[in-house]
Parts: sequence; C-alpha cells; structure tokens
Amino acid sequence: MSNRFKVASRVSAMKGSATLEAARKAAELRQSGIDVIDLTVGEPDFDTPEFIKDFAISELKAGRTKYTPSAGARKFVSSVASFFNDQFGADLSPNEVAASCGGKQALFNAVCTLINPGDEVLIPRPYWVTFPEIVTFAGGKSVFIDTDRSGFILTAEAVAESITERTRLLILNSPNNPSGRVIPPREIRRIVEICAEQNVFVLTDECYLFFVYPPAEVYTAAVLPPELRKFVCIAGSFSKTFAMTGWRIGFTIANAEWTRAMIKLQSHSATHPTSFVQYACADALANRLQMLESIESMLAEYRRRRDWLIPELNGITGFTCAMPEGAFYAFVDVRKLLSEKFPSAAAVSEYLLNNSHVMVTDGAAFGADGFLRFSYATSLENLRQAVDAIKHLFGTD
Amino acid sequence: MSNRFKVASRVSAMKGSATLEAARKAAELRQSGIDVIDLTVGEPDFDTPEFIKDFAISELKAGRTKYTPSAGARKFVSSVASFFNDQFGADLSPNEVAASCGGKQALFNAVCTLINPGDEVLIPRPYWVTFPEIVTFAGGKSVFIDTDRSGFILTAEAVAESITERTRLLILNSPNNPSGRVIPPREIRRIVEICAEQNVFVLTDECYLFFVYPPAEVYTAAVLPPELRKFVCIAGSFSKTFAMTGWRIGFTIANAEWTRAMIKLQSHSATHPTSFVQYACADALANRLQMLESIESMLAEYRRRRDWLIPELNGITGFTCAMPEGAFYAFVDVRKLLSEKFPSAAAVSEYLLNNSHVMVTDGAAFGADGFLRFSYATSLENLRQAVDAIKHLFGTD
Repeated sequence: MSNRFKVASRVSAMKGSATLEAARKAAELRQSGIDVIDLTVGEPDFDTPEFIKDFAISELKAGRTKYTPSAGARKFVSSVASFFNDQFGADLSPNEVAASCGGKQALFNAVCTLINPGDEVLIPRPYWVTFPEIVTFAGGKSVFIDTDRSGFILTAEAVAESITERTRLLILNSPNNPSGRVIPPREIRRIVEICAEQNVFVLTDECYLFFVYPPAEVYTAAVLPPELRKFVCIAGSFSKTFAMTGWRIGFTIANAEWTRAMIKLQSHSATHPTSFVQYACADALANRLQMLESIESMLAEYRRRRDWLIPELNGITGFTCAMPEGAFYAFVDVRKLLSEKFPSAAAVSEYLLNNSHVMVTDGAAFGADGFLRFSYATSLENLRQAVDAIKHLFGTD
Repeated sequence: MSNRFKVASRVSAMKGSATLEAARKAAELRQSGIDVIDLTVGEPDFDTPEFIKDFAISELKAGRTKYTPSAGARKFVSSVASFFNDQFGADLSPNEVAASCGGKQALFNAVCTLINPGDEVLIPRPYWVTFPEIVTFAGGKSVFIDTDRSGFILTAEAVAESITERTRLLILNSPNNPSGRVIPPREIRRIVEICAEQNVFVLTDECYLFFVYPPAEVYTAAVLPPELRKFVCIAGSFSKTFAMTGWRIGFTIANAEWTRAMIKLQSHSATHPTSFVQYACADALANRLQMLESIESMLAEYRRRRDWLIPELNGITGFTCAMPEGAFYAFVDVRKLLSEKFPSAAAVSEYLLNNSHVMVTDGAAFGADGFLRFSYATSLENLRQAVDAIKHLFGTD
C-alpha cells in the first residue's frame, strides 16, 4: 500500500504566490528574532477605518449571519452599482455586479468562466503575480506584452500587434502593481476598442482604483459606453482602497451573461463573501463622502512617503526609479548593478536582506528581471531606516 | 462588432446549485407577498451563538483586519488541530490543516488539486448537489453508486464493486444531506481501507459532524490510523454545527502534500477566509466546552422537531420517511404517489407549492428521483403549518 498522491496537473503547473511567500518569510524571520524591515508588503499599513468596523459590528449584532445569494446580498450589489453610478456617472445595473472574496477571487472567477484550454491571454509585463497563475489553472496560455520601451505603459498599438486568432482575453492593471504606472484614460479606451473589434475580452484589475496621485487621473472602465463595456470585466476590491485586505471582499462588474456564469461557479466554490462583511461594505458605500474622505487621508500619507522615497532611491548608486503615479510601490531598476557579484536582481535583494535586513521583492516575480519592488505601505520611519541601510551598502551618487 | 461571449465549457457544463436556487425562489415569492412555508433551507434557523459573535467583535476591534497566510492564521489551523486532538483523540499536526471559505470551498480545493481530466470520482447517490458539479469543473467523471438497496447507507462492498482503474477519489458525506443517514464508524473505516488498497483517495464531507442523534455516533475520519488517513481529506465547516453559514469558514484536513497544493490554489483564488472570522473561530474552538454546550442545545431542538415531524410525515397518504440519524433533513419517499397526475416528485413538490405554499426540494436534485427533501431547520410552528396543509391536500392513512 503506497501513497501515490499526485497533485492535479492544472495546480502543479501553478507557481505559489511570490508576494505571499515573501510575507511568510518576513514573518518567519521576525519570529526568529531578526529585526527585518519588510518592504515586500502588498497591503496598507493602516487599520480599517473605524466607521466600517462599526458597520460590521452592527450588522453582525443584527444577525446578518446567514447565507446571502451567491451573487452577493441584494443590498451589496445595489450599493456597488449605485456607488459607481453616483461617483463616476456610470450606468450599471445590479445584475452586472457580483460579490467575490476579494479582488483576487474576482479575477479567478472571471478567467475560469471565460478561458478554455489553449486560449491565449494577453498579459502586459510587468504583471501582478497571480495573473499568469490563474490562466495556467484554467488551461490557457499567457502571452506577455513587454511594456519596457513605453515606460511600463501599455499602448493600444502593442495590444493590436499581440492579438492572434487564439486571443480571448487581455488582463489590464492600472494603477499597476508593481510598476506604479497609470495608463491614461484615453489609452485605456483605445485598448478596449481594439480588443472589442477583434472579439477579445478585457479583464481590468481596478484594485488600486482611487490610489492615483494627480496629475494622473482616477479612471474606471465602468464609464465606457455599453458597446465597449460588454467586452469588459472589472475586478474591484475593497482591500487596498479601504484598508480591508483581511476582510476578503471584492466584486466583478461584467455583462449579465458573464456575471451569471461567475455566480454559478461561485455557488459551487466559496458561495459568497462573509455576509455581514457584505452588509458593512454596502453601508459604507452608501456613505460615499465618508468613504472618499478616508481614502483622501490615506492617499495623502502615501503621497508624502512617495515624495520622500523616490528621490532618495534615485540617489543610491545604481538605483533608478520612475515616479509612481498610483498604488504604493516603487519599482526600482537595478540593472546598472548587475555584474559578476550580482548576476540578477534576486542577488541584489538577497544581499540587501543579509546585510541590511531590508526585504524587497525581486522583479522577476512580476516578469521584470533587473528590477526590485519596494512597497511604501509602511511608515516613513521604516522607509528612512531602510534607505539609510541601503545607502550604507551601495553608497550615493 | 458582435459580442461573442461564450462561457468556458468547464463552467457551462456545471449546473447551478439547486438548493441555492430554491432559496432564491423562496425569497422572491416572499417578496411578492406570498406567505411561503420554506422547507428548502439548508442552514440552521438559529442565529450564531453570542459568544462567537463577541469573539469576532473583539478580534475586529483589535485590528485583525490584515492578510493572514493563505493556509489560514497560525492560530486558526492550530486551534482546529488541537480541537480534533482533544475532542476525538486524533493526532493532527497544524500543517495538515488549511482554512477555507466554508466547507464548500474545502471540497472545491480538494477536488481541483487532485482530479485530472478523465479521472473517475465515485459519488454515492443521493448526494449533495455540489459534489458532481465540482467534479465537472475539474474535468473529472462522476460515477454514482446507488445506495437505495442498503437504505441509503454506503457499504464497503458497493465501493469495491465500483472502483475501476480510472477511479481516483470517493466523496463521502455522513451524516448525509439529503438522506439524514449516518454510516457506522466501522463501515467508514472499511470503506477507506478498500479505497487505500486501490490507491483511491477519500474526500469526506463532515459538515454535519456533530449533528447526530444517538444511538448513531459522532465520527470523524481524523481518528483513522496514519496509513489510512493519508488517503483522506476531511472537508470541515463551522456553518451548520455553529450556525455560521454566512460567515464562510471551514477547513480541510489532509496529508501535508495535498494541503500544500490546496494552499497554493487558494493563494491565487480567495486568498483566505475573513481574517477576524478565523481568529474568532480559533477563540471559540479554544473554549471547547462552551462550543459543545451550544451544539447540544441546538441539537436538542432539532431532535424535538425530528421526533415530531417524521411520524407526522409517515401518517400522510403516500409519504414514507425513514428516521434521520443525523443532519436536519427528512428525505421522503413519494414514489407511491407517482401516477399520471404526478409523473415525478417534482410534480408533487410543484403541487405542494401551488396549493399549500409549502416549498420542499425535489430529490432529483440529489440524484434521487421519487423523493422530496424537507428541512427541519425551521420552527416547529412552521413544520406544524406545513404538515397540516399537506395533510389537507393528500389526506392521512
């Protein structure tokens, strides 16, 4: 009797989440007593705003502890639609919205309901680590579009050049993790137009929707005209914008047919996100001004850190970093450092960890060799310490 | 420009959840002003115990609002392992436990990480609606084992007869939804032995674990000896036992390799169940006696309803119902009623809905034509009203 356990090939072909793995490693080091400065984190360092917690507590006490529909509670999907309609002038109907256990599950549901084995999915590089892994799970083929030459901004031309007969989907992410770049609204519209002409669908990860530093603009694909929007699925999330990563709540916005398919899949997987969390988010969205105020105050702090951090990083020998227009990451080009001593950015990040206890994420995880991702979702004090330690190692220009 | 949206075949081949669909329909009828007596519900009518709500509120206030590991918070997986070890004398290690968004996602993760296209999965009939749909999603082939002749109790012999070279997995569910039957512990062990000999894995849905009416026995596969347990994945849930359906929290218990694969899949889908819900469950499990007390009191009420309901149902002309040994469903054989007027149990259930506003679930959804499922997770008052109305329609023996 031998245990012949073998992981199904769709899963064995997937890589674990490099960013979650980094978080796990950082926690392990801290537990072993090492004072790590962790700049790998992909979540706000703020706690969830008190008013949202209070809503959750009220809904919990009121007995919102039962199943909701798989689509999400009516109150939740209606609130999401109303929020987008009121805030952006969109024209969403609640049956185009479905609740999901975070933005990640929104992406998972969207890809699994559209992609058949062999379908090609266009993914601009650098990309968020989960995109190609979900495509692998669905049996699709990730086809990467390099955006290095256009400063990490995807262009409609690059998309047009990459579409083949097998292309079924393009995955967008703006503001972008890891690059921090924001695709201008006009360009997003051109990209969707080109896709729609070729019957290619567009899945747009808007989890950093509001985390944009002017003059870059907040933009949601929800405002596209109906003939374009029917090709689009938006993956939305409360995680980053409202400092609710642990709550696991997000949503999809897509055509009614795609939405029904995602609801069916969800009815046999997670069922729905936590009931009273859905109600709390609906309550919060209904308090739109309070929501926006809380985003503003967090964004001001991220901006303060960004404005300090980027010039400092650019002052370090061998480091080059464009000013992020959104999200909370600095994506540092360290290719000038590559040598026998540092054959890859991974070697640089290992050197940083071993010699300064600063943890950053290797860009290779995002499909960008030669880069390092620094998260500034941590205190200015931590950032100062990290920069001082790195300067000590590499010197300044 | 035409919208050629087409659902991926793995999802278009799935059926929606018949039980969730019934719940949706009942809600719709109620909203339209019809006073439906809904006996389709698959969730406790009790609210979550106050002490668990209080733990959730404390953890939320304490800022447990951030990502946990994809496996679940260390505190959560350790508490689950300790609970099974203390309560049942199992010998679980925390790295054999992974958190999931409810028992359903536990099943989903287990099947998706094991089943390759073409693999056969044995499913005893009647079955919970989600089992074959998840297998379909994974590209597997559901092979049903009829248990009608053995009073809806799966036997090791029936399993042995059904195993082929392509069999990869057997899905067990005891106490059973919809039949309410409980497989004796000795038989479960024989079933797992036979599977293990043939390198067939066993996924056992223990979501009704504690909902057993003596002399039937509470039994978890977690107590199997290591050489058998390595072939087993337990899908556990807080939903039914602790009246927490809406909270979406459950777990898997499986060998470390299978567990790692499920965690990897989860790291790219739901990420993890809600953080403060995990911590609240860990707190609750650590208060084992209080947990057991709360189960006892709910179970006493279900038993009171069962003891009243089953004789009443058996008194109705054409209705036959075995005494449920677990869960909270009466599975009524209405085959004696089948005729030109009632070509199927579905026709009986439609007749009940139209003429008495009593809603029950057609057994065909569970693979058992000629049966109706009555949930007694509702007040005795509702049950009395329903029985009176049905007696009025069909008469008594």
